[in-house]
Amino acid sequence: RIDGARLVSRLMALSAIGATPEGGCRRLALSDEDKQGRDWLVGQLQALGLDVKIDAIGNIVGILKGREDGPAVIMGSHIDTVGTGGRFDGALGVVAGVEVLATLRDAGLVPKRDMAVIAFTNEEGARFHPDMLGSYVWAGGMSVAAAHAELDADGAVLGTELRRIGYEGAEKPGFLPAHAYLEMHIEQGPVLESEGGGLGAVTGIQAICWLELTLKGRPSHAGTTPMAYRKDPGLAAARINIFANEVTKTIPGQLANSGVIRVQPANVNVVPETVVMTLDLRNPLDAPLAEAEATIRSFCAELAERDGIEISFRDLARFPATPFAEELIAGMEQSAAELGLPIRRMISGAGHDAQMMSRLCPTAMVFIPSIGGLSHNPAEFSTDEDMTAGANVLLSAAWRVANA
Amino acid sequence: RIDGARLVSRLMALSAIGATPEGGCRRLALSDEDKQGRDWLVGQLQALGLDVKIDAIGNIVGILKGREDGPAVIMGSHIDTVGTGGRFDGALGVVAGVEVLATLRDAGLVPKRDMAVIAFTNEEGARFHPDMLGSYVWAGGMSVAAAHAELDADGAVLGTELRRIGYEGAEKPGFLPAHAYLEMHIEQGPVLESEGGGLGAVTGIQAICWLELTLKGRPSHAGTTPMAYRKDPGLAAARINIFANEVTKTIPGQLANSGVIRVQPANVNVVPETVVMTLDLRNPLDAPLAEAEATIRSFCAELAERDGIEISFRDLARFPATPFAEELIAGMEQSAAELGLPIRRMISGAGHDAQMMSRLCPTAMVFIPSIGGLSHNPAEFSTDEDMTAGANVLLSAAWRVANA
Ligand SMILES: NC(=O)NCCC(=O)O
Ligand SMILES: NC(=O)NCCC(=O)O
Repeated sequence: RIDGARLVSRLMALSAIGATPEGGCRRLALSDEDKQGRDWLVGQLQALGLDVKIDAIGNIVGILKGREDGPAVIMGSHIDTVGTGGRFDGALGVVAGVEVLATLRDAGLVPKRDMAVIAFTNEEGARFHPDMLGSYVWAGGMSVAAAHAELDADGAVLGTELRRIGYEGAEKPGFLPAHAYLEMHIEQGPVLESEGGGLGAVTGIQAICWLELTLKGRPSHAGTTPMAYRKDPGLAAARINIFANEVTKTIPGQLANSGVIRVQPANVNVVPETVVMTLDLRNPLDAPLAEAEATIRSFCAELAERDGIEISFRDLARFPATPFAEELIAGMEQSAAELGLPIRRMISGAGHDAQMMSRLCPTAMVFIPSIGGLSHNPAEFSTDEDMTAGANVLLSAAWRVANA
Repeated sequence: RIDGARLVSRLMALSAIGATPEGGCRRLALSDEDKQGRDWLVGQLQALGLDVKIDAIGNIVGILKGREDGPAVIMGSHIDTVGTGGRFDGALGVVAGVEVLATLRDAGLVPKRDMAVIAFTNEEGARFHPDMLGSYVWAGGMSVAAAHAELDADGAVLGTELRRIGYEGAEKPGFLPAHAYLEMHIEQGPVLESEGGGLGAVTGIQAICWLELTLKGRPSHAGTTPMAYRKDPGLAAARINIFANEVTKTIPGQLANSGVIRVQPANVNVVPETVVMTLDLRNPLDAPLAEAEATIRSFCAELAERDGIEISFRDLARFPATPFAEELIAGMEQSAAELGLPIRRMISGAGHDAQMMSRLCPTAMVFIPSIGGLSHNPAEFSTDEDMTAGANVLLSAAWRVANA
């Protein structure tokens, strides 16, 4: 059984790194805070006597050798956060994986297969695109070279930042063959709490499409230019934001968010020249997501034509709906049942490293409730009891798979 | 008569400072480029043997002594530009004033009254608020201390920047009593060109209201938060932008622009926490402008209530409609007629230093056409012929007033 107090104190030690006055965490990928968090994690893994390796994209791997050679049972998540992040998102999954291995070691239990925990680089996509970048590279979806060339909003280069913080490792991403991947995470949404609590056996992850739109109009004087004569990309961006929101009302399950809006030249009295905006579109199913995207693109085309705005599109992320492995979902349910913990099946609204790992091996996740459904918010919160319950299910399910 | 070639070559010398690849100028107030432009201007004034003074807000004054003591006939404008500025806006008016004094000196003509040219600090309002700040302080509308405390978008302090570039002068703003103020400027709009060219005798300046709105919502996860549960200030900002645009269709003469939109935390997958946006509202008349502002404020109040967004307002600038002095408007027309130049009366859409100076003394302006009506745009353009015509009207009108 997991030592709940130790799990919580490990998480609190990590969440002190990049702590914000609002009670959350700001540990953007490859920032100084991320480096400190990584240093802390490597220290924890070494203290457990695990075999610690870093790969070329900065994924941190701690391996507990099993009795036999062959693919490992991998647990993991990420320790980077968004700008207004909380203390639990990602960090909990990594710490729970560490705690599982610590618990086995303390009990002197050696699994049949190797077991490992991985902290993947840049899962949030808050600083570099796409989200789940580290696990995407690990799973072979993107080359190391392409990932190293990614730029943040200030033009900083991912590879340079990785070397700057000393986390460009020698290993090839994916170097550790995977027998199965299991991830514990906070739900980050309101479903479990609104159902009266309990755990979630995640059946899969919804489809994700991130678009960046660049809108070019014509800068002009806000006091002298008649309204009809303006080509205002700020107004066009506003219309697209509202249209995307309307689309969510007509396509079942559809979500839309415009999280980034950058206006140039950003003077009070200048009709903008350029707006860069993003759209985060999601749907549990691929087909309605494609329909939402197509509807928005054709709205943009009409708007561009009508208002004399040039609109260009760039993909920042595009991941299909990802069902998890039935035997592992059932394994999560079985472990919860054995522990006397309520659990229900649900789909994940957020992307997770598990979505990328499922390209390589059978994969599943266990969710714990997020109070108020809040995440990517400093007030993100989960109870010690739920964290311990989730970690126990992870321990039990991982141990079963590692010895099957 | 003005030497047109010399006027144009003086303007081109100034516009080489802060020249952009697109053919425009970027000489933001109190930037390094502004300092270079100021140094150039002071050199020109000194070469003409004028009495050069700098005041505590950085206004640069060049004085040609007249035969009698008493208030001066002042000409002027500004040399700062917006981020995507052109070569003519402001700079032309300053250079024309210099050229008027140079022409009188070359001809050995000494006016009855003192004559002066002033380059006012931060007219554009592109870096610091409000616009027309230097002339506003000169006219006593704002204290030097309050102006020095203004911050730019990066938090730089106006007073510190003024000292950094060496232009905090010893004089008290307004130290030179004004008998009249005359300003030549490009129209910055399409009216004169669409009427077949010719000059504009400006009858006054429309009312200006600049508002900064801060919208606070609730940051949340774009993949897990149901649409109905979001408090998205980005969407609220979009609705306000579109509403302000709609208001221009129902209130005659009304203009609206949202030139600045800053989103926090600006992550693709985070529903924004905070948006700061500006509105530039203008109308030739005070009452309809007040109506537009009230309509927008009540829309914001309803939106805030409905969508759970906190909206707060801050005034960045607020200037009433400003009629010019009839005798000076007629003087511009008389000068144009004597020179055989077509001229028509018109109101100014843009704010100008003349708007502030009219608090102190009779004031008027002469406009020359802006090709394509473009301004605050690198492609801003006026012909050599029109510039020379405008400067000749300025010379003639100023000489008349200086000797009356
Ligand atoms: N779990 C999580 O917040 N991942 C970030 C990727 C996403 O936007 O879903
Ligand atoms: N002339 C000019 O562009 N002035 C800036 C102030 C305004 O926005 O009208």
